[in-house]
Amino acid sequence: MPPTENVYFDAATTAPLHPVARQALTAALDEGWADPARLYRSGRQARMLLDAARETVAEVLGARPDEVSFTASGTQAVQLGMLGALRGRRRTGRHLVHSAVEHSSVLHTAERFEADGGEVAAVPVDRQGRVSPAEFAAAVRPDTALAVLQSANHEVGTVQPVAETAELLHAQGNEHCPLLVDAAQSAGRLPVPAGWSLLTASAHKWGGPPGVGVLAVRKGSRFNSALSADEREGGRVPGFVNVPAIVAAAASLRAVQAEAAAENARLHALVERIRAAVPRLVPEVEVVGDPVARLPHIVTFSCLYVDGEVLLGELDRAGFAVSSGSSCTSSTLTPSHVLAAMGVLTEGNVRLSLPSGTTAEQVERFLTVLPELVARVREPLGLDLPAPAGAAGSELVVDQLGKRCPLPVIELAKRIGEVPVGGLVVVLADDEAARLDIPAWCEMRGQAYEGEAPADAYGADRGFAYLVRRVS
Amino acid sequence: MPPTENVYFDAATTAPLHPVARQALTAALDEGWADPARLYRSGRQARMLLDAARETVAEVLGARPDEVSFTASGTQAVQLGMLGALRGRRRTGRHLVHSAVEHSSVLHTAERFEADGGEVAAVPVDRQGRVSPAEFAAAVRPDTALAVLQSANHEVGTVQPVAETAELLHAQGNEHCPLLVDAAQSAGRLPVPAGWSLLTASAHKWGGPPGVGVLAVRKGSRFNSALSADEREGGRVPGFVNVPAIVAAAASLRAVQAEAAAENARLHALVERIRAAVPRLVPEVEVVGDPVARLPHIVTFSCLYVDGEVLLGELDRAGFAVSSGSSCTSSTLTPSHVLAAMGVLTEGNVRLSLPSGTTAEQVERFLTVLPELVARVREPLGLDLPAPAGAAGSELVVDQLGKRCPLPVIELAKRIGEVPVGGLVVVLADDEAARLDIPAWCEMRGQAYEGEAPADAYGADRGFAYLVRRVS
Repeated sequence: MPPTENVYFDAATTAPLHPVARQALTAALDEGWADPARLYRSGRQARMLLDAARETVAEVLGARPDEVSFTASGTQAVQLGMLGALRGRRRTGRHLVHSAVEHSSVLHTAERFEADGGEVAAVPVDRQGRVSPAEFAAAVRPDTALAVLQSANHEVGTVQPVAETAELLHAQGNEHCPLLVDAAQSAGRLPVPAGWSLLTASAHKWGGPPGVGVLAVRKGSRFNSALSADEREGGRVPGFVNVPAIVAAAASLRAVQAEAAAENARLHALVERIRAAVPRLVPEVEVVGDPVARLPHIVTFSCLYVDGEVLLGELDRAGFAVSSGSSCTSSTLTPSHVLAAMGVLTEGNVRLSLPSGTTAEQVERFLTVLPELVARVREPLGLDLPAPAGAAGSELVVDQLGKRCPLPVIELAKRIGEVPVGGLVVVLADDEAARLDIPAWCEMRGQAYEGEAPADAYGADRGFAYLVRRVS
Repeated sequence: MPPTENVYFDAATTAPLHPVARQALTAALDEGWADPARLYRSGRQARMLLDAARETVAEVLGARPDEVSFTASGTQAVQLGMLGALRGRRRTGRHLVHSAVEHSSVLHTAERFEADGGEVAAVPVDRQGRVSPAEFAAAVRPDTALAVLQSANHEVGTVQPVAETAELLHAQGNEHCPLLVDAAQSAGRLPVPAGWSLLTASAHKWGGPPGVGVLAVRKGSRFNSALSADEREGGRVPGFVNVPAIVAAAASLRAVQAEAAAENARLHALVERIRAAVPRLVPEVEVVGDPVARLPHIVTFSCLYVDGEVLLGELDRAGFAVSSGSSCTSSTLTPSHVLAAMGVLTEGNVRLSLPSGTTAEQVERFLTVLPELVARVREPLGLDLPAPAGAAGSELVVDQLGKRCPLPVIELAKRIGEVPVGGLVVVLADDEAARLDIPAWCEMRGQAYEGEAPADAYGADRGFAYLVRRVS
């Protein structure tokens, strides 16, 4: 199938630039290009824009403006945050705790810290990718200089119990051990969990431009900059401050936060649809990550007997940009440390992360091509795979929301021929009559009525999904 | 005088965005927003743009593309470059050599290195701010892990003898000691001097956007990244790569290099004009930095009995954005380490760094207001200062290039009343008759003819400057 439109399902890697960010960037290139540290007019103007951006970001993230420093990336925020906290607490000890499923920037910094003589404990996670607050807190010792826990996992979307963990740390008398919360995947989408001492985030994950990270350090937290500091960004991040990009980052954070309630619900339902459909459509597949306490926009599944890299190539040719924990980057072929820590299948891994504005049509199109592509990748292996729950691996959603009967039944009759025998037609309808008419039609035409499902599993915000299996 | 137009003379801090950079940035936000490490279509497109940008930057700077990594700022390039080289040569020794007039990012990194147990030698400079190649080379020992020398000084514009120094290092058998050349102020304007092992630069100094630095490491140089590296940018700079800004940086570097020959000559002449005029117009002033081997666009002078901060404020109110080595930033009031190392006056320091497109009219306007403002700042002190060479501190340039006699003399007669008695009128003319007519007119009208000067000292590319002192 030649791609009619390229669909980008890799927002967790980088989100497309939010229109508000682009506008703000263009304006700030005119108004905020000068050095905000200078006292002349254009410098003062840049400083005002920078201060306003800092206030916005602080407000959205629940910090004080003077706690917020801007870095050049989320990775730099994590590195400077971890190293600065570790240096600031050097007298307490050289013990570092982090979850086993942190972003690679945390793991790399921890590895370097260990190589330099530090001691590191990686707290395991359950099969959903979640740490246990009790287990995490138990790993923190009196000589622990820093604990690191993400707000939500970047590969499988599982939300971590940050606030509970922070409370436990406090309760057990380790309240002085700083907790660095890496909020890269949740900032702007979900409220920042309580209890952080250091907070990191990355603007291009929320639709801001590349080149902006956030490092917030709570008042009273010990911090000793790892890089030789200058007087910029509170002495935490040296180098010329990228005011235009920061202004754009703040504007898009504000916009994304304002849109989050509605957009999260929409994306949550689309992901629900994918989570439910994929195991029905593809044999030998495992959807991973917590089905409930999860980010709204991320869904990850792994396909047995599939080379993730090859499947990504097929999806790309079909017009879908997705990512894989099995092929984190073009040059690294090691399996995902996240999936490995969860004890789930790492091969044939596909992560979809839906950007704002993803449509149900795009999702349906993906679900149409995925079974074919997985089958094509597996074909040379000559395996005899069990049929998936979804039988012939074909499923068609017929959206009849807002249509009065008998229209839903007419459309069902017209389109059932589009799926092969064994395939499933899902009729979305909110006319109550459909509940009677669709089973009746199946009875009359010798098709199999398989019952109702919640409509939000198919990306709809109302009505019901009626499942019809084509038998003849 | 209310400012009619704000004039920006602080290009050495940050240059206004080049129009080509803005265009390229806008285009690359559309075309190069995806992660260049991804293999899907938009990722490959970003990678192609990044590769092309790297080739451009490498070509202009005289490096191989695979030697060039992009950082988030010039400061980050210096820090990662210095720390990576020092780590890579740890077994050789822990001795670092740099000139006393390096950028603060070098000095701060050196201070931190010293605090961490390293040994640092700062090579002194002469009164022009220049290191002696012999003295610099003599400071490099068999256990020196790294030597750092700027291509040109950022405060006074003096060009350093980098190639000669590198040759001496090689000749004395220290060819293995890497030389990091900080080309932040010269990249794009002047060819990069030969002999570097590591090269650093900053895009916003050449009219690129903020957020892009360059770190080039010559093949064969030992390098061990100081921050935990990921697979990006050759393992030297971790974090998401800012492709749109890098594309814009490369485009503007190419453009600036193409314009450099013409623009350098123009700015060189304007700076010559300032260098010659300021001591004539302002009493007790010292123009510092090498008058010949200098950057085309930077001129620095210091005014005795003047608080640099206060003078900058006055200039700002008069519409001029300039910088001062006496007040490097709004929060740092320590005197410039550069001026201190040169042994020149550090008080009342003003640095002008002319951006591309600076006009002779802007320079003349600056020269008109400067004497008044310096006098105003000094006034409360009640000092009895000697008159400057330029007498009443007033000078008027009458541009008559291309005008045939008697027009130059007529214009001189019309306008000499604009300067007070004691002031100077400079007539620029290329009609040979002016050489006779102007002295003759002075004789007849009782004014003082003071001779000829090269026209390029007044920003002109031809003709002569005829100096007339108003006597009555």
